[in-house]
Amino acid sequence: MKDAQGRKAVANGFDFSQGLAGLNADEAALVRRREKVLGTMGPLFYDRPLHVVAGTGTHLLGADGEDYLDCYNNVACVGHSNPHVRQAVADQLGRQNTHSRYLQDEVLDYAERLVATLPDAIDHVAFTNSGSESNDLALRMARVATGHMGVVVTQGAYHGITSLVASVSPSFGTGLPLAPFLATVRVDDALHGADGADASADAAWAVLGPRFKQAFDALEHGGYGVSCVLIDEAMSSDGILPGACGWIARLADAVHARGGLLVSDEVQAGFGRMGGVLWGFQRHGADADIVTMGKPMGNGIPVGGVAYKHPIGDVFASCTRYFNTFGGNPVSMRAAGAVMDEIERLGLVAHAQAMGDRLAEGLRGILRGHARFGGLRHAGLFLGIDVTDGAARPDGAAARAVVNALRDDGHVLISAAGPGDAVLKVRPPLVFDDSDAARLLDAMQRICDSGLMDR
Amino acid sequence: MKDAQGRKAVANGFDFSQGLAGLNADEAALVRRREKVLGTMGPLFYDRPLHVVAGTGTHLLGADGEDYLDCYNNVACVGHSNPHVRQAVADQLGRQNTHSRYLQDEVLDYAERLVATLPDAIDHVAFTNSGSESNDLALRMARVATGHMGVVVTQGAYHGITSLVASVSPSFGTGLPLAPFLATVRVDDALHGADGADASADAAWAVLGPRFKQAFDALEHGGYGVSCVLIDEAMSSDGILPGACGWIARLADAVHARGGLLVSDEVQAGFGRMGGVLWGFQRHGADADIVTMGKPMGNGIPVGGVAYKHPIGDVFASCTRYFNTFGGNPVSMRAAGAVMDEIERLGLVAHAQAMGDRLAEGLRGILRGHARFGGLRHAGLFLGIDVTDGAARPDGAAARAVVNALRDDGHVLISAAGPGDAVLKVRPPLVFDDSDAARLLDAMQRICDSGLMDR
Repeated sequence: MKDAQGRKAVANGFDFSQGLAGLNADEAALVRRREKVLGTMGPLFYDRPLHVVAGTGTHLLGADGEDYLDCYNNVACVGHSNPHVRQAVADQLGRQNTHSRYLQDEVLDYAERLVATLPDAIDHVAFTNSGSESNDLALRMARVATGHMGVVVTQGAYHGITSLVASVSPSFGTGLPLAPFLATVRVDDALHGADGADASADAAWAVLGPRFKQAFDALEHGGYGVSCVLIDEAMSSDGILPGACGWIARLADAVHARGGLLVSDEVQAGFGRMGGVLWGFQRHGADADIVTMGKPMGNGIPVGGVAYKHPIGDVFASCTRYFNTFGGNPVSMRAAGAVMDEIERLGLVAHAQAMGDRLAEGLRGILRGHARFGGLRHAGLFLGIDVTDGAARPDGAAARAVVNALRDDGHVLISAAGPGDAVLKVRPPLVFDDSDAARLLDAMQRICDSGLMDR
Repeated sequence: MKDAQGRKAVANGFDFSQGLAGLNADEAALVRRREKVLGTMGPLFYDRPLHVVAGTGTHLLGADGEDYLDCYNNVACVGHSNPHVRQAVADQLGRQNTHSRYLQDEVLDYAERLVATLPDAIDHVAFTNSGSESNDLALRMARVATGHMGVVVTQGAYHGITSLVASVSPSFGTGLPLAPFLATVRVDDALHGADGADASADAAWAVLGPRFKQAFDALEHGGYGVSCVLIDEAMSSDGILPGACGWIARLADAVHARGGLLVSDEVQAGFGRMGGVLWGFQRHGADADIVTMGKPMGNGIPVGGVAYKHPIGDVFASCTRYFNTFGGNPVSMRAAGAVMDEIERLGLVAHAQAMGDRLAEGLRGILRGHARFGGLRHAGLFLGIDVTDGAARPDGAAARAVVNALRDDGHVLISAAGPGDAVLKVRPPLVFDDSDAARLLDAMQRICDSGLMDR
């Protein structure tokens, strides 16, 4: 038995011990049912949890009859209830949906299409059902291919929920032990200057190079060696750190020099989220060895993937086999193909960049001059806004107040992340349009007018 | 780098090094595409892999235009392309499919329904996307709740493919190291007598009790303690061992006496597969603490679950959190609910028992007297047939010949499992009907007539 010390609650989580005051009868009844059958292991968002009953595009319909603007969801990347994805799933369910130990067209069609979006050397893919399964497999493959055990992640990293992956995810806190073969590197102070301006890759690496060297040294001295650096290309749980483009290319070179691999965790960053390119590592020109995928891949139908340079898989296949019952099933593959169709048809990679830039500019204009505004960082439609105590220190309580005010008053859904949960996390479906942007900006203006962003 | 020593290939796997002789142009083209983009990490079934293009009920349509009788698939438990499941998925995809950090009806409706099928003490559930994720979470929960690390499994166990779960799955062979905190127990020689007849629980436990005691002792002496026994209630990869009903109740008592938990892996056995009851542990009257689910749960839509006694989850939740992005998503929940509807509407739990008994009797009648027939074991629609060399020794090559002859000549799909891959594994969708049974029996008769089951 362990005590509760060290457990880190989820950002913006509902506190089950707070009671049901402030909730309407419907919400209170659902929270009670949830406690009774799901317990409190899984988090629920907002001081007043939202009962969702329908969704279209960037909009979620609450059981309260209100329309909520979804500025948080990167699973429904091509929009809630996307008709093209629905059609593909319905069609395939009417054909067949068995496993990949038979020859099937669907898994090959999608695999070829996916691999074509990646550098030539990343020529193979294995399919999973989630980002967690993807990162778990990637770590296993890196371990076997290199013969080393050590893993390096960023200080606030979150990579998923299997036993192995959770043990290299310091964002869970210290309630359960982290892996002994883990080294962490702080990066949040080196990638952006004041007001979120990007640092240069040179300046960032001047700070980070020695830190990673120290991490590699520690793993080697500990006898683990360096299996890989596993890096979320959005560094979401570190506070959303897309800056200093190019530094991860140097990180790749540095880990290769130690005989390790660069595992690019694209579960959050991939599929155009960061704008301009499909994959986060491409923004850096980094020589990634393994690329992991999940969340937006099937617009909500569970599917994940691990793309890799084939020699890595050849070594792994010589030691063991990997058969994932649902992995690569035809329905998930068709859903993923339909997502890719929509990304291409709607030009969402370019759209994410243009819309993200406009949104960032609009938000900066509204927030600038307010004492609690500590800077804004973004790439594409992944934005992070620092909320401070007015004296440049992260203020999670103030960020939480903004998140809940947006939910309650503006019916706009965002969340928080980063050190102290003091970074507003804005990450809408990629189909976010001008009227959505106007609504978000208007809601943020009202937050500022209300004084919440002042001291 | 490791060499290939110790890696155990999948039973009935296509040998990629065999070349493409015997395959038609379509099959050969797909195998080549597969090698190019998926590599050889994932197995493919049969000497001549089957190209599946459609499915209905218990039937799969090959690209060769032939109708194949599926006697192997326990994912499509309520039938390939089940219309009720399709309708539920299509309906929900048109509503919304976001995550469980919002309040949603779908996850609660299904959770309550699922928990109601379990003993009162197993009152909570967490949802995952696969049996592997389920077993991984169960092991983590058992570890935290007991404060112990040691795991006991059967000698030939397979529990899944995350790093942790694969490390307690000796069926992968020794190409990668098993967990140091693992102890294994041989069970296949104690549960059934000659010709597959069930041993009594008393007789079985007289043999197995001391073996488990030894395993527990070893883990305690190693300083790991006993976290849990993780047991596949069908013992599929041990050769399908449903006999000696009641012995797992004694196992539960024995592990409880060491401060450990019984984790009932129902990924294969659950949802009525074993006939008569919904859950495999219920056949034994065992006091399971955690019940894991996967494969048939959503008829192919990825979904898994971990049901548990709530104090176990309370301890876990005090140390960490568990949020699974796709876990409990409304589409997977609706698919799972539709599967439960069909199981109830069609009376599949009782049907599995009656049909399994008839099938077993029919197969025994055909196989008896043939030299290579070593016995038949079954519970419900999970049947295992021993193929020997004629002198009671397992003969995997002979079993493989039968599997491939059934596929090629009878267009009947089964596979193999167990020690030496010498056990024919027959595990059709639960909607298997009398005409299907007649076709399987007829195909097996022709196998016997051809002399394949003689020396």
